[in-house]
Amino acid sequence: MSEYALDSKHNDALSEDQVWMRQAIAEAEKAIYRTRPNPAVGCVIVKDGVIVGRGATAPVGGSHAEVFAMREAGEQACGATAYVTLEPCAHYGRTPPCAKGLVEAGVAKVVVACADPNPLVAGKGIEILRQAGIHVITDVCTAEAEVQNKGFLKAMACNMPYVRLKVASSLDGRTAMASGESKWITGAESRQDVQHWRAISGAVITGIETILADDPLLNVRSLFDVDGKVIDLDTIVQPKRVILDRQGRLPLTAQILKQPDTVMVMGPFRQELAELGVVQLEVQSLQDLLRTLKDFQIYDVLIEAGATLSTAFLQENLVDELISYVAPTLLGQSARAMFNAQFESMAQQLRFKLADVHQFGDDIRLRLIPSQESV
Amino acid sequence: MSEYALDSKHNDALSEDQVWMRQAIAEAEKAIYRTRPNPAVGCVIVKDGVIVGRGATAPVGGSHAEVFAMREAGEQACGATAYVTLEPCAHYGRTPPCAKGLVEAGVAKVVVACADPNPLVAGKGIEILRQAGIHVITDVCTAEAEVQNKGFLKAMACNMPYVRLKVASSLDGRTAMASGESKWITGAESRQDVQHWRAISGAVITGIETILADDPLLNVRSLFDVDGKVIDLDTIVQPKRVILDRQGRLPLTAQILKQPDTVMVMGPFRQELAELGVVQLEVQSLQDLLRTLKDFQIYDVLIEAGATLSTAFLQENLVDELISYVAPTLLGQSARAMFNAQFESMAQQLRFKLADVHQFGDDIRLRLIPSQESV
Repeated sequence: MSEYALDSKHNDALSEDQVWMRQAIAEAEKAIYRTRPNPAVGCVIVKDGVIVGRGATAPVGGSHAEVFAMREAGEQACGATAYVTLEPCAHYGRTPPCAKGLVEAGVAKVVVACADPNPLVAGKGIEILRQAGIHVITDVCTAEAEVQNKGFLKAMACNMPYVRLKVASSLDGRTAMASGESKWITGAESRQDVQHWRAISGAVITGIETILADDPLLNVRSLFDVDGKVIDLDTIVQPKRVILDRQGRLPLTAQILKQPDTVMVMGPFRQELAELGVVQLEVQSLQDLLRTLKDFQIYDVLIEAGATLSTAFLQENLVDELISYVAPTLLGQSARAMFNAQFESMAQQLRFKLADVHQFGDDIRLRLIPSQESV
Repeated sequence: MSEYALDSKHNDALSEDQVWMRQAIAEAEKAIYRTRPNPAVGCVIVKDGVIVGRGATAPVGGSHAEVFAMREAGEQACGATAYVTLEPCAHYGRTPPCAKGLVEAGVAKVVVACADPNPLVAGKGIEILRQAGIHVITDVCTAEAEVQNKGFLKAMACNMPYVRLKVASSLDGRTAMASGESKWITGAESRQDVQHWRAISGAVITGIETILADDPLLNVRSLFDVDGKVIDLDTIVQPKRVILDRQGRLPLTAQILKQPDTVMVMGPFRQELAELGVVQLEVQSLQDLLRTLKDFQIYDVLIEAGATLSTAFLQENLVDELISYVAPTLLGQSARAMFNAQFESMAQQLRFKLADVHQFGDDIRLRLIPSQESV
């Protein structure tokens, strides 16, 4: 075994294909934050029990994961097995199709974690491989690989982005005092975690009230990799910042306009914003907004807004995942509610399934998926 | 090694004394729910690396843990080491002093997890052992042992019971709809967990509004041991149920009066309650109430009340631990708030330290300790 020898301790119960796919997933992990709007894909090429090539999607305009892995493997790719986290592409886009590349390299077997729901691929990549006599295995470590590209996969399948709604509240469900005072309900570790969700998002949506009250930047300002190492922010793609401003109140002095070319505004057309390079969206509803963002190749959306806008997204069933930070504090009943719907009976409640819970300092983070079930 | 041979896998980093003390703690665990108002204590006697005797506190009137362990050990106690989770008693109470018993049995060494703050013991047990030439080691696995007798230890040290406040709320901090409708915000697994907290409590406190609205029993109705086995409720001590009823509105038809001898009422004297065997408390404040309950040998108190009473206990700094169940649901801003203080600034907030978080089905339970720190 080479330097790539595996730590078998954690892999006792895994098949050999799962073991190698985990390595491909680890490659993809290195590419997150950097490939948007392309999905982050990882690939390893294995021959005689040793990884002979590995790669991950390069930033936009660069090569796909398979290209890097094949380049490293060279002639050793012939007769080898390729593990890819997403179905190899079949179309000529910014790069030539990877499925053809794998055929030409002479790989004997290809293992795929997720099928690509992109209509330009959708089984065609696998078909090219099989036609060439390559043994193809699908659905290995699918759930783990899907997590890395939730937005891309949903956008390709449903023509809508994957929408995360972030809320930070006290234990009694309050986001600020009546006066608006809110610094800081959650702690530094929770706030750092929010940077991750921004960084995987194509856009952060907020409301004009939040801009007027807090004058936030809503960009990514510090980021760490899985090993806790600082990530150079120049290597990541910053999210667009989308402001809902129906009455055109966005001040030209707002901090968010320091990088106007990454700001989008949903509101009446304003010449002065156009001159700054701000994209102005003409949409009629929140659903329209999301579909339009998808057309801009924004596949992951993070909503960081006040209760009114957050409640609207929730009540219109537009949220795929609620990311709720709860701080261990009580703010009392005159403080602002995180969710301002007016429900009269329990039958109207919005219920969720708990995906996971994590501790950040003294705060906890719940990831919650809207539940269609009645209680 | 005998049948008591240890599973060394989980004990790699422990000293030998810690390994055996864990066994004594496991003995004590078998006695919880059953010994009130006595603390649940465990004892093992070890000779030549083998447990030769073990015991736990019997229900009130029965023997202490050391007596059972010595009885099982017989002559093998001579020259052995005794591990006890609480300092052996030094006084003649319902039973003769255990410290003397250990001396007479000829043990060579005694290891103690917690000193007994009971003024009748308070170091005297250890003193008796040392005077007899026994080697005494203290403070082994103290934190783990303290957890088993929080109320007893606090009551002996501070003359006040240990007070837990239970709240079950939605993610947005609501406990019921405006109409009072509240069944069920949290799930069956959370509700089962509440049975544990009732069962370790000497009393459950509630308010008359809760009685009038829900007509609850507030007793222990189902209980499982650490291995998930059903506990026979005839073997446990039910908590007293304490009702705060300043205006004397408790209906004689209330379900809680089906066992009137375990009900205590804080309110104006009522002859009809006295005739039922209900204890009526004359106290002027919540703090008075708690101190009085301590005089009744109630060392662990669980508050299960509405927002007004819960908020009062919290604001008067009378709560040692907040047990907060959060259900993954949003009930909206017209639903009832869990905490109804009126705070104007963040400086007034009630902050907590997070002790732990557990998942119960789709709910989570936070255990929170009031924090004196400013933020």
